[in-house]
Amino acid sequence: MSRAGQERVRKIFDTTGAGALFITDPHNVGYISGFMGEGMLYLSRNRNVIITDSRYTEAAARQSDFEIIEEKNSHRRVNILRECISSDGIDIVGYEDNYMKCSEFSRYANGLQEVQQWLPLENQINAIRRIKTPEELECLAKAEAVGDAAFADILNILKPGMTELETAAELEYRMKKHGAQGLSFDTIIASGLNSSMPHAVPGNKKLETGDFVTMDFGCVIDGYCSDMTRTVVLGKADEKQKEIYSIVLRAQTEALSVLKAGMKGSEVDAVARNIIRDAGYGAYFGHGLGHSVGLYIHEDPRLSPTDDTVLEENMIETVEPGIYVPGFGGVRIEDMVVVTADGCRNLAHSPKELIEL
Amino acid sequence: MSRAGQERVRKIFDTTGAGALFITDPHNVGYISGFMGEGMLYLSRNRNVIITDSRYTEAAARQSDFEIIEEKNSHRRVNILRECISSDGIDIVGYEDNYMKCSEFSRYANGLQEVQQWLPLENQINAIRRIKTPEELECLAKAEAVGDAAFADILNILKPGMTELETAAELEYRMKKHGAQGLSFDTIIASGLNSSMPHAVPGNKKLETGDFVTMDFGCVIDGYCSDMTRTVVLGKADEKQKEIYSIVLRAQTEALSVLKAGMKGSEVDAVARNIIRDAGYGAYFGHGLGHSVGLYIHEDPRLSPTDDTVLEENMIETVEPGIYVPGFGGVRIEDMVVVTADGCRNLAHSPKELIEL
Repeated sequence: MSRAGQERVRKIFDTTGAGALFITDPHNVGYISGFMGEGMLYLSRNRNVIITDSRYTEAAARQSDFEIIEEKNSHRRVNILRECISSDGIDIVGYEDNYMKCSEFSRYANGLQEVQQWLPLENQINAIRRIKTPEELECLAKAEAVGDAAFADILNILKPGMTELETAAELEYRMKKHGAQGLSFDTIIASGLNSSMPHAVPGNKKLETGDFVTMDFGCVIDGYCSDMTRTVVLGKADEKQKEIYSIVLRAQTEALSVLKAGMKGSEVDAVARNIIRDAGYGAYFGHGLGHSVGLYIHEDPRLSPTDDTVLEENMIETVEPGIYVPGFGGVRIEDMVVVTADGCRNLAHSPKELIEL
Repeated sequence: MSRAGQERVRKIFDTTGAGALFITDPHNVGYISGFMGEGMLYLSRNRNVIITDSRYTEAAARQSDFEIIEEKNSHRRVNILRECISSDGIDIVGYEDNYMKCSEFSRYANGLQEVQQWLPLENQINAIRRIKTPEELECLAKAEAVGDAAFADILNILKPGMTELETAAELEYRMKKHGAQGLSFDTIIASGLNSSMPHAVPGNKKLETGDFVTMDFGCVIDGYCSDMTRTVVLGKADEKQKEIYSIVLRAQTEALSVLKAGMKGSEVDAVARNIIRDAGYGAYFGHGLGHSVGLYIHEDPRLSPTDDTVLEENMIETVEPGIYVPGFGGVRIEDMVVVTADGCRNLAHSPKELIEL
């Protein structure tokens, strides 16, 4: 992973004309160098440098074979960068404008007047991470399997009277017991009326009989995120709950059945969106169908009406249609899949028929 | 909190000359408006607007009395902002340059040519959050108390053979069972040789008899973060462990005893740093003594050699000296305190004498 990343980064020197790259997004720092702490990379044709402080120098030396320069009050980052640029004779510097903050950029631009041109790299560094290696796919599959295992556990635990927050705590604890090294994002538990909010924050509301309970959760294995959502009913589902659930499930199933390399993200989105629209719930599906996943939980390309990226083999996508009816409740069903030449490989294996607990 | 925040923000119109403010840092969005989802605020003398998408519009209406405008593909954010700016007749826009990414700024700057001047707000919005209200202090105290309770639990659980990751999972689970709504940061568990890395990431290393085990953890209550660190020894401490521990504890105790409103952060830092230096371990304390805490886990002002901010009543600071000896191990002891007129009020109540388990 690290070596492939380095080679893909080197190509950016040729295509952009940049003499040096400032890599400040920690996930890209880790992808390229192996170093997982706080700091940045200075990359040129001559040098691969990690700039970090005393909290991380020992870890950096263990994790990476890059040159390490320690920043401290007597040797600040901008001075280190000036020395690197001067010794390499750099005029044009590429920077991660999708990650770097305006104030940080101002500090570099003001402090490094010798730079003639600052080149926004846009998504070029992230883009080299889109197509996953077998090793990365294994991490992603493991992470999704941990989610499956925790979901199986939670079905034995869920009962009326538990709060949403307790449910989140149980799910997270179980993911960690099954090997998760971290969470991909704050677990979403939305029950009853709250389930009509796609990104509800779990609270002290107790789960009640008759509630839809939407659980959206994921974990991190060796840096890679998983993502899955299931919606269950506590007790018996009523007719409207069954109707909404079956529409969302059909939208998801159909989208999964068409998804393959060569399709545009927008085309996959349309398959699910049309089913929901034709069933009369078009106004209640406001978000995109899915997104890629990797070191970040939300990556490009997306499955959305506005993303015409052509999907390629070994990209990751979530497929997560939903219907959210204010004052009633909502359903979302989400799997994470690997795009293949003739379809997709679903990394999630948890059941999707309507579960009544 | 929200109303006080709004009034302090209004003063920024007078002091900076900005006609409108773009608030994009989600913590500042929440502080000012009450809205806790993804989106931004457009503030002018005439209007308080939340701009968000369909995932959050229902939550926004529940959480805030601000005007809500829904962004969607047919009504994008930059168009909404242009309409606001035009109707208010705005020339100068303040933006959060410490939060906003370069690429986002470019989109606004390119899309809103009618803006004559873009004013970086630097820390002005964050600064209004420095002095905590009684309600905020209550949340912070509750969050630190949850940390205390979880630490008491973990002392009964820690034993040789547990991995660092399992220890982190147990600590996090217990914080959530005691009422935590989230984690302030990924729990740090560093044992044995790993404890010489101040920001070690917990791994599959098993805790062993004789290890220093450093636990740095915190949780979130109603948006506010806690932070504390304790280091214990599994089994009996050896002489060098006792020596290092006692120096760190003395540095922390002395710093806590001098800290009060009117002192500079750098002065408090020096008290602890001199003790560690005089004991011969100056080279092994590379980070600052502490930082403020609030909606973010790391806020200004800092207790560090380079922060000369004068502390004021009802600011929060962590006090966390450490000694980290590569190839041997390390100790950090951290409390979170409220600055008072004549001292400080310690929100952490966990024991600090060396615990041998």
